[in-house]
Amino acid sequence: MTTFDPSTEAAIARVRAEVAALHGELVRYGLVVWTGGNVSGRVPGADLFVIKPSGVSYDDLAPENMILCDLDGVVVPGSPGSERSPSSDTAAHAYVYRHMPEVGGVVHTHSTYAVAWAARGEEIPCVITAMADEFGGPIPVGPFAIIGDDSIGRGIVETLTGHRSRAVLMQNHGPFTIGVSAKDAVKAAVMVEDVARTVHIARQAGPLIPIPQQAIDSLYGRYQNVYGQAADARRTSS
Amino acid sequence: MTTFDPSTEAAIARVRAEVAALHGELVRYGLVVWTGGNVSGRVPGADLFVIKPSGVSYDDLAPENMILCDLDGVVVPGSPGSERSPSSDTAAHAYVYRHMPEVGGVVHTHSTYAVAWAARGEEIPCVITAMADEFGGPIPVGPFAIIGDDSIGRGIVETLTGHRSRAVLMQNHGPFTIGVSAKDAVKAAVMVEDVARTVHIARQAGPLIPIPQQAIDSLYGRYQNVYGQAADARRTSS
Amino acid sequence: MTTFDPSTEAAIARVRAEVAALHGELVRYGLVVWTGGNVSGRVPGADLFVIKPSGVSYDDLAPENMILCDLDGVVVPGSPGSERSPSSDTAAHAYVYRHMPEVGGVVHTHSTYAVAWAARGEEIPCVITAMADEFGGPIPVGPFAIIGDDSIGRGIVETLTGHRSRAVLMQNHGPFTIGVSAKDAVKAAVMVEDVARTVHIARQAGPLIPIPQQAIDSLYGRYQNVYGQAADARRTSS
Amino acid sequence: MTTFDPSTEAAIARVRAEVAALHGELVRYGLVVWTGGNVSGRVPGADLFVIKPSGVSYDDLAPENMILCDLDGVVVPGSPGSERSPSSDTAAHAYVYRHMPEVGGVVHTHSTYAVAWAARGEEIPCVITAMADEFGGPIPVGPFAIIGDDSIGRGIVETLTGHRSRAVLMQNHGPFTIGVSAKDAVKAAVMVEDVARTVHIARQAGPLIPIPQQAIDSLYGRYQNVYGQAADARRTSS
Repeated sequence: MTTFDPSTEAAIARVRAEVAALHGELVRYGLVVWTGGNVSGRVPGADLFVIKPSGVSYDDLAPENMILCDLDGVVVPGSPGSERSPSSDTAAHAYVYRHMPEVGGVVHTHSTYAVAWAARGEEIPCVITAMADEFGGPIPVGPFAIIGDDSIGRGIVETLTGHRSRAVLMQNHGPFTIGVSAKDAVKAAVMVEDVARTVHIARQAGPLIPIPQQAIDSLYGRYQNVYGQAADARRTSS
Repeated sequence: MTTFDPSTEAAIARVRAEVAALHGELVRYGLVVWTGGNVSGRVPGADLFVIKPSGVSYDDLAPENMILCDLDGVVVPGSPGSERSPSSDTAAHAYVYRHMPEVGGVVHTHSTYAVAWAARGEEIPCVITAMADEFGGPIPVGPFAIIGDDSIGRGIVETLTGHRSRAVLMQNHGPFTIGVSAKDAVKAAVMVEDVARTVHIARQAGPLIPIPQQAIDSLYGRYQNVYGQAADARRTSS
Repeated sequence: MTTFDPSTEAAIARVRAEVAALHGELVRYGLVVWTGGNVSGRVPGADLFVIKPSGVSYDDLAPENMILCDLDGVVVPGSPGSERSPSSDTAAHAYVYRHMPEVGGVVHTHSTYAVAWAARGEEIPCVITAMADEFGGPIPVGPFAIIGDDSIGRGIVETLTGHRSRAVLMQNHGPFTIGVSAKDAVKAAVMVEDVARTVHIARQAGPLIPIPQQAIDSLYGRYQNVYGQAADARRTSS
Repeated sequence: MTTFDPSTEAAIARVRAEVAALHGELVRYGLVVWTGGNVSGRVPGADLFVIKPSGVSYDDLAPENMILCDLDGVVVPGSPGSERSPSSDTAAHAYVYRHMPEVGGVVHTHSTYAVAWAARGEEIPCVITAMADEFGGPIPVGPFAIIGDDSIGRGIVETLTGHRSRAVLMQNHGPFTIGVSAKDAVKAAVMVEDVARTVHIARQAGPLIPIPQQAIDSLYGRYQNVYGQAADARRTSS
C-alpha cells in the first residue's frame, strides 16, 4: 500500500471530492447515459490523477470510490476504490496528463450532438459568439482510434496541442475535453455539446453567417482575460 | 393458489423488486410515456418470469403489484398482483423466454428515435464506437406483426437468434431488447434509443463515415470480455 | 351565490381535485410552458365543468382555485375561484361539452410537435402501432379559427364527431383532445405529442411504411375493448 | 458606500428577490447552461437596476449576491454583492434602461433554437397563434455586434423601438427580451425559445400556412388588453 505525505493526501481528498461531484454535472446536462462518460482531475503537486471507476452507476459515485492512478494510468495499490477497475478510458486520460502538463482535468462523454459531428468527421464551424468566447474558433476533429493502446490519447494531444479549442471530436467516437481543472474540462464538455446542438440545428434550415476572424479573436481574447469570476474559476480547481 | 419452495419464493421476491425498480430507469431516460413500456425478468431456477401489470401508472409500480407468470404467459393464480392483468405484451415476453433459455430479461418500449427507424423499416448502421461496443454491429429490423398471437415473439426470436445485437426494431412498432438479466435488457433499451437518436441526427447533416468491420469486431470482443465491473453486471441480475 | 345539493357538491370537489392534479401531467410531459395549456372536466350528473384559471402559474394550481362554469362557459357566481377569470379557452371547452354529451374532459396545449403539424395544416399519418391502438388512424386537422366566438369549439366538434381520433390539430394553433374523462383527455394530449414527434422524426429520414387498414382496425378494436386496467381507466374519471 | 431612502431600499430588496428567483425559470425551461444567461430588473422609482453577477453558478444565486447598478451600468459602491463583477452583458442592459423608460426588465440567453435563427440572421415568421398573441408578428433580427461598447445595447433598442415584439435575435449571438417587469421579460425569453423551436420543426417538413395579418392584429390586440390575470401580471413586477 502506497502512502503519501499529508499535503498530498489532502490534495488527493480534495480532487476525489471534486471529481465525484462533477460527474453530477454530466447527468444534469444530459451528456451521459447509464455508466458512460468519465471525468478525471490531476492531483496538484503530484504525478497522480483521480478518475471514475468503470461500470458504476452515477447514483453510486462518491469520493471514496473514485480511483487514484499514476500518470501511466496504473491504479495506486491499496488506495480507496482500488479494488475496482478505473474507467476503460483511463489510458487516454493518462496520456494527456503525461504530455500536456498544463492540463488539470480531462472529460469524455458520448453526448449526442458532439458524437453526431464526430460520426461525419466534421469540425464544428464557429458561427456563434458563445463559441468564439469559449473555444476561440472551430471545434476540431481527431483521428479514428480504438481503445487498447495509446492511439486515442495521442490523437487528443496531437489535435489540441497549440489549438485554442479545449474540445476535440474523436472520429466515430465522441468528444474529449481538457481544462486547467476538472471543473474547467467539465464546462468545456457542457459547452461543446451546447454548440454542437445549436450549430447542427441552425444549419438544418439554411446557410449560416460566418463571424469575421477579427471578431472571433477579439471575443476569445476578452473572454479569456476579462470575464470576472469565471476567469478566476478557470484558474482554480473548485 | 400456487406455492413454491422457499428458495424459489426468495428468487421471486428478488426479481419482483428488481423489475419494479428497473421501470424507473425507463422513466429516467425518457423511453416511455403514460403507462407504455414494460420490463420483465426471468426467475432463476424456475419456469417463471415477473412482468409489469397492464395500464398502471409508473408512479404506482411496486414489487407487490408486479405479476408472476409461467413461461406460457399465464398468471400464477393467487400470487400477489394476480388480480390485475399482466402487460398486453406478455405473450411476446413469454415466447422469448421459452425459446431463448439464455435470456434473463426482456424490455419493450416505444422510445422515440428507435420507433422512427422502425417506422421506416430501416436498420441502424454501426457508425459510432459505443454502438460497436454494445451491439457489435447494426441494430436489425424485425417483421411487421400485430398483437394477438405468437407473431411478435417469433419475430423477435428469429431476428435476434445468432445475432450480436440484443435489440430488435419491430417494424412500425418499436424496440424489444433482451439481456442476461432484466438490468442488462434495460441497459440495451437505454442504449438502443441513444444510438438511434445519435445516428439519426448525424445522418441529417451529411454522409457518415463507416467503421471498418475489423474495428467493430475488436471493440465488441473487448467490451464483452474485458470491460470491468460492467461485464460482471451483465452476468448477474442486480 | 349558487348552491348545489350535497351529491353535486361532492362531485364538484372530486373534479376540482382531479383537474388541478392533471395539470401536473402537462408539465411532466413537457406539453406546456409558462401558463399555457388547460384541462377541464365535466361534473358528472350536472351541467357544469371545472377548468383552470387564466394566467396562473402551474406551481400555484390547487383544487380551490379551479373555476366552476356552466355549459355556456359562464363562471358560477360565488363559487371558489370565481374571483379569477377562467382560461381564455373556456368558450371552446364549453362548446364541446354542450355538443358532445359523451365527452367528460377536454385538454388544450401548444405542445411543440403537434403545433408543428398544425402550422402546416397536415394530418399525422398512422404509421406506428401505438397510434393505431390509441387513435385508430390519422390525427385530423381542424379549421383555422381565432378566439372570440364559437368558431374554435365548432371546429373541434365538427372535426371529431364520428372520428376515431380523440385529438384534433387546429390549424396554426395546436391540439385539442377529448376523452370520457379529464384523465382520458390528458392521456390523449400526451399521446398526440408523442406520435407527432415520432412520426415527424421518422419522416425526416425517408419514406414511411404504411400500416394496412385491416391491421389498424384490428389494433384499434382490441385496444378499446381488451386492454386490461387501462380500458377501465378510460371509463372512469380517476 | 451609497445609501438610499427607506422606500428605495425596500424596492431594491423586492427587485433583488425577484431577479434572483426568476433565474430559476431560465433553468426550468432549459434556456441556459453553466453560468450563461442573465436577468435584470429596474428598481421602480430610482435610476437603478439589479442584475446577476458574472460567472456564478445558478445554484448559488440569491438576493444578496445580485448586483445593484446605476443606469450607466456602474456597480453601486458598497452595496451587497458589489465585491463581485456584474454580468458581462451589463452594459447592454444599462443601455436599454437608459433609452427605453417603459422597460422594467431585460433578459439575455443563448437558448438553442433562438440562437439557431440568429446564426442564420433570419427572423421567425408568425405562423402560430400563440406567437401572434405574445409577439404580435415576427421576431426580428438585430445587427451583429460584439461586447465591449454600446453596440449591443444600441442594436437592441433600435430593433425593438416601435416594434410589437419584446424579443430580438441579435445576429450570431442570441435573444434579448424586454418587458414591463423582469417577470414579463423572462416570459418573453421562454416564449421566444418555444416559438423558435416550434417554427423550426414545423418548417423542416414542408411549407407553413401564413396567418392573415388581420387575424394577427386581432389576436395581439385581444391578448394585450383582455387576457385576465396575465394582463395584470404583465403590468406588475411579481
